[in-house]
Amino acid sequence: MKNYFIAKSRRIRSTSYTSRIENQGVTAYTVYNHMLLPAAFGSLEDSYHHLKEHVQVWDVAGERQVEIKGKDAAKLVQLMTCRDLSKSKIGRCYYCPIIDDKAGLINDPVVLKLEEDRWWISIADSDVILFAKGLAIGNNFDVKIFEPNVDIIAVQGPKSFKLMEKIFGKKITEMKFFGFGYFEFANHQHLIARSGWSKQGGFEIYVEDTKSGIALYDKLFEVGKEFSVKPGCPNLIERIESALLSYGNDMDNNDNPIECGLEKYVNLDNDINFLGKEKLKEIRSKVISKKLMGVVVDAKEISVSKSIDLVNDENFKIGELRSGVYSPHFKKVIGIAMINKPHYKIDQKFKISINDEVFEGKVCDLPFI
Amino acid sequence: MKNYFIAKSRRIRSTSYTSRIENQGVTAYTVYNHMLLPAAFGSLEDSYHHLKEHVQVWDVAGERQVEIKGKDAAKLVQLMTCRDLSKSKIGRCYYCPIIDDKAGLINDPVVLKLEEDRWWISIADSDVILFAKGLAIGNNFDVKIFEPNVDIIAVQGPKSFKLMEKIFGKKITEMKFFGFGYFEFANHQHLIARSGWSKQGGFEIYVEDTKSGIALYDKLFEVGKEFSVKPGCPNLIERIESALLSYGNDMDNNDNPIECGLEKYVNLDNDINFLGKEKLKEIRSKVISKKLMGVVVDAKEISVSKSIDLVNDENFKIGELRSGVYSPHFKKVIGIAMINKPHYKIDQKFKISINDEVFEGKVCDLPFI
Repeated sequence: MKNYFIAKSRRIRSTSYTSRIENQGVTAYTVYNHMLLPAAFGSLEDSYHHLKEHVQVWDVAGERQVEIKGKDAAKLVQLMTCRDLSKSKIGRCYYCPIIDDKAGLINDPVVLKLEEDRWWISIADSDVILFAKGLAIGNNFDVKIFEPNVDIIAVQGPKSFKLMEKIFGKKITEMKFFGFGYFEFANHQHLIARSGWSKQGGFEIYVEDTKSGIALYDKLFEVGKEFSVKPGCPNLIERIESALLSYGNDMDNNDNPIECGLEKYVNLDNDINFLGKEKLKEIRSKVISKKLMGVVVDAKEISVSKSIDLVNDENFKIGELRSGVYSPHFKKVIGIAMINKPHYKIDQKFKISINDEVFEGKVCDLPFI
Repeated sequence: MKNYFIAKSRRIRSTSYTSRIENQGVTAYTVYNHMLLPAAFGSLEDSYHHLKEHVQVWDVAGERQVEIKGKDAAKLVQLMTCRDLSKSKIGRCYYCPIIDDKAGLINDPVVLKLEEDRWWISIADSDVILFAKGLAIGNNFDVKIFEPNVDIIAVQGPKSFKLMEKIFGKKITEMKFFGFGYFEFANHQHLIARSGWSKQGGFEIYVEDTKSGIALYDKLFEVGKEFSVKPGCPNLIERIESALLSYGNDMDNNDNPIECGLEKYVNLDNDINFLGKEKLKEIRSKVISKKLMGVVVDAKEISVSKSIDLVNDENFKIGELRSGVYSPHFKKVIGIAMINKPHYKIDQKFKISINDEVFEGKVCDLPFI
């Protein structure tokens, strides 16, 4: 597949670390929340192996925050998600599908409860701030809604714990998964969560003070030398193997959380008020018409830039591949696909055309690893 | 400036014409409404000269439509814009700033009145659909809101009239600026507006039937041979010379329409109901703190990927450059800048650093041509 350049402009915002990563050899970008998100530092496979063995520092400032504060903040956050947040705690992160009144997915952020009346919605790629503003204005809620100046640094990989301990002390390694706390660096308090968009372990540093954040970015590389630290970014191979879903890629507004395997975050048997609740009850009462599943294809390469049809022996479309990559672990192409009823069963066979050649594949459960 | 590749994925949607433009030599993309928007076909200057002399066909499917239909459609559209639409007519386009309750710009679309209760908002780069959904849900409006399958083809340049006449007949040349109508091609009716993101004249074809649209795309090149047709895209030089503002580049949610020189589209002395009206009255009653203006710099090249400070002789920031380009017409760098009070006056001098070299410039009115 031919490569194309990205045309930069102010509309595609740079991050606090853009000049750093360009010096460090970033080769490709994607755009995420109107911002540059690094997509490659040379070889995807090299970066995959490195991430699984060592530690990487990622510029993921594109994960923007929507801050909601004020008397009705909790009410508004709950209105937008089908996950029950009534027992949520300050200092915890919550993965929350955000849906509209038709139960169509709008985003799948991690929600951070900063205070009872102050929340951050750490968003995937869609303007949740506009949805929140519209709802708040329409409902006459007493809230302030804005995008704070937060540029996240992710520290990911098995050696991230040792690296972070060297900078922030033992305490940071005691934090539980999806917990967050405040840690000092160079006289600034940084919100740090044990989270991140890989399954290799690690942290996300929510940098509010740009200057201190850049110093911290440099410090991570300085101290990280002994742990073979490298710059990196969310890795397509690792995230598909781990089935970390990507909004816009694997699912969109035409899908509901139940179709996407997010039942765990759909809480319907309660009296809390959120959009799409009745619709979700209706969906739950029936057999779903499509389901997000894994697929394995007997091929050695693939590049997915749009949905690719999966067909059966009769050339009938049974689903569509939405993300895919060659996995060095399985030595096959693996992917995430939306499979139609009644074909969404394990070992369902299909055919797929990749670069004008037809390959065989079969449906499987997620995650792969 | 070093170039970087764009990482493609389903999240960055392809258009109906992507395979066409890749065969035709597109070299760079930007991302617009989560979709690929061509940004270059080789030399920017060659394309600029060609656009001003001949005719180009552009894949601007990234200009997505938000369709609002139903009993409260007109009420919702009016709620989002400070432009008085009470006398709007079916078959006309309206440039409408969309603002929030603080009068901050959210988008600057062209609004098409299809029927009394059916509208298209042809958006710049932000998820207006989420704002509209939030407002509709919060206000309990009786509307349907969705993104129809519309991939716009723009036909731009002085010879666009001759080319379109050859395909659609004399009638299309009689359409007034910002009018639209339905025209037949290969048994399909296409909504065509006399509009487009250049000042060289032309049309936008709102393709709803993908297959017919692709045939039409090919037909435009076939018939266009005698008019020296070429593939193209919005041209940075042409659009800055003409001062066609770009949301996200020249203005964003931190700016209001009055600061951006859009007073013409701000209608406050009436009894219509829209967001931010009281705030705009307050803004109008005072001297604005910043203003969008033109700048001319004695330099031969520039590449603007983020705001660049403009300072006076005392090294005091008087504004920021948001878009800029070398203009072959003026043989200087020209740009669009947000200038602070009291410096937003014609001939105000400033200094600007480009690639570590300091250049002199001055403020001017928009447009340049």
